Amino acid sequence: MLSKARAKFIKSLQVKKYRQSEQRFVVEGAKSVLELLASDFITETVVATQEFMDHSKLLLSDFSGELIEEKESTLASVGEFKTNNSALAIARMKPNLPLEVNEHEFAVMLDDIRDPGNLGTIIRTADWYGISKIIASNDTTEFYNPKVIHASMGSFTRVQVYYTDLAGFLKQATVPILGTFMDGASIHEVDFGTGGIIVIGNEAQGISTAVEKRVTRRVTIPRFGKAESLNAAVATAIICDNIRRKRVD
Amino acid sequence: MLSKARAKFIKSLQVKKYRQSEQRFVVEGAKSVLELLASDFITETVVATQEFMDHSKLLLSDFSGELIEEKESTLASVGEFKTNNSALAIARMKPNLPLEVNEHEFAVMLDDIRDPGNLGTIIRTADWYGISKIIASNDTTEFYNPKVIHASMGSFTRVQVYYTDLAGFLKQATVPILGTFMDGASIHEVDFGTGGIIVIGNEAQGISTAVEKRVTRRVTIPRFGKAESLNAAVATAIICDNIRRKRVD
Repeated sequence: MLSKARAKFIKSLQVKKYRQSEQRFVVEGAKSVLELLASDFITETVVATQEFMDHSKLLLSDFSGELIEEKESTLASVGEFKTNNSALAIARMKPNLPLEVNEHEFAVMLDDIRDPGNLGTIIRTADWYGISKIIASNDTTEFYNPKVIHASMGSFTRVQVYYTDLAGFLKQATVPILGTFMDGASIHEVDFGTGGIIVIGNEAQGISTAVEKRVTRRVTIPRFGKAESLNAAVATAIICDNIRRKRVD
Repeated sequence: MLSKARAKFIKSLQVKKYRQSEQRFVVEGAKSVLELLASDFITETVVATQEFMDHSKLLLSDFSGELIEEKESTLASVGEFKTNNSALAIARMKPNLPLEVNEHEFAVMLDDIRDPGNLGTIIRTADWYGISKIIASNDTTEFYNPKVIHASMGSFTRVQVYYTDLAGFLKQATVPILGTFMDGASIHEVDFGTGGIIVIGNEAQGISTAVEKRVTRRVTIPRFGKAESLNAAVATAIICDNIRRKRVD
């Protein structure tokens, strides 16, 4: 059973300040906890129902951390999501390690993505399209926000995110840098080649001026109706699908 | 200035039960209110800051409803969104009118989309791709939910949504009915022709059995990485982009 102090600790990790000082984060829901246990993250604690434990014996047999049995109602009350009814885990954050992008791979760059749902969906989409490197501006929503982890549907275990100053990063880059603008070449016609960095702009402001200066290929998602713009995660997905369709390797 | 009773009425419209009994809904934010005023919806009341009124004189000069000046803080307090700082409107719902889909147009069908953010993003995406007809199951989230209206970014004014029993609707349909499954033909290779109904399944359960029976073309979004699935709005966008790319008309 979960002690009061432990429940309070888990709840505190919903707040960025405490996640940062503890360097730990919470993963909720059966699917996400199973993906976490199968990943290279260090999981310290799993709080789960007896039913979850019975169903996940194999994965849990390799788990050497703290295992606490709890009932559904308690799980829902300590977590961010009321729909969580089977498992929750505490894991250690990974250090913010620099990433390099070579000419044989695509990476996604996020220029101030603020909505956690969007960030999680972008991570899930990148993972679907086999993109595992994400470079995020320092003002992009925190990777370990519970809503990001939740919306990524387990894909947070398979991508690396590096937070940095984007303009500085791009100054060093030797691969094509793609950005979406109204005046770019149609993604239905562009040959994307074998690698590069796909820049996704902020939900309201788009790509910032400092980053735009470094873009080497301006592209456009063709529009057939009247909406002014697309959601950031939707735009990421459409570009990724077009890149993979054209793939040469 | 907004009376207490009027503020209470606006707040009550955040709840589905009251929206249904009043047959009215709330639109928040400058962009959405401007799109509403330019649409064929009947707008009854606009509550806005002096600044919004000054900037929107032309559109407001045609507006014969109730116009109330208010300060930012009041607008944010009566609305669903704290970020609203310029305008809010009350409009009449449209009746749930039957839709027909002919062989020269595409329509989107929603088989129990539950997340309001997803529904709004699907509406925005459909509008981007020039699809204005959406057929939704009776269990799909309500179109007039403030989160749906918000996420649609004004596109709610340009699509028609018809809520109905999907299996019954599809029994009458004479156009191709496309559904996404793991075992379908790659959307990168399929010729979509000139029209049809694109079925989008529920976030967790996918397409229901009753609807699956009516699908005439099983398609698949090719995967290049390890995510198990895609977000429903993301999947809609990828299919729409592939349909438009192949467009013959």
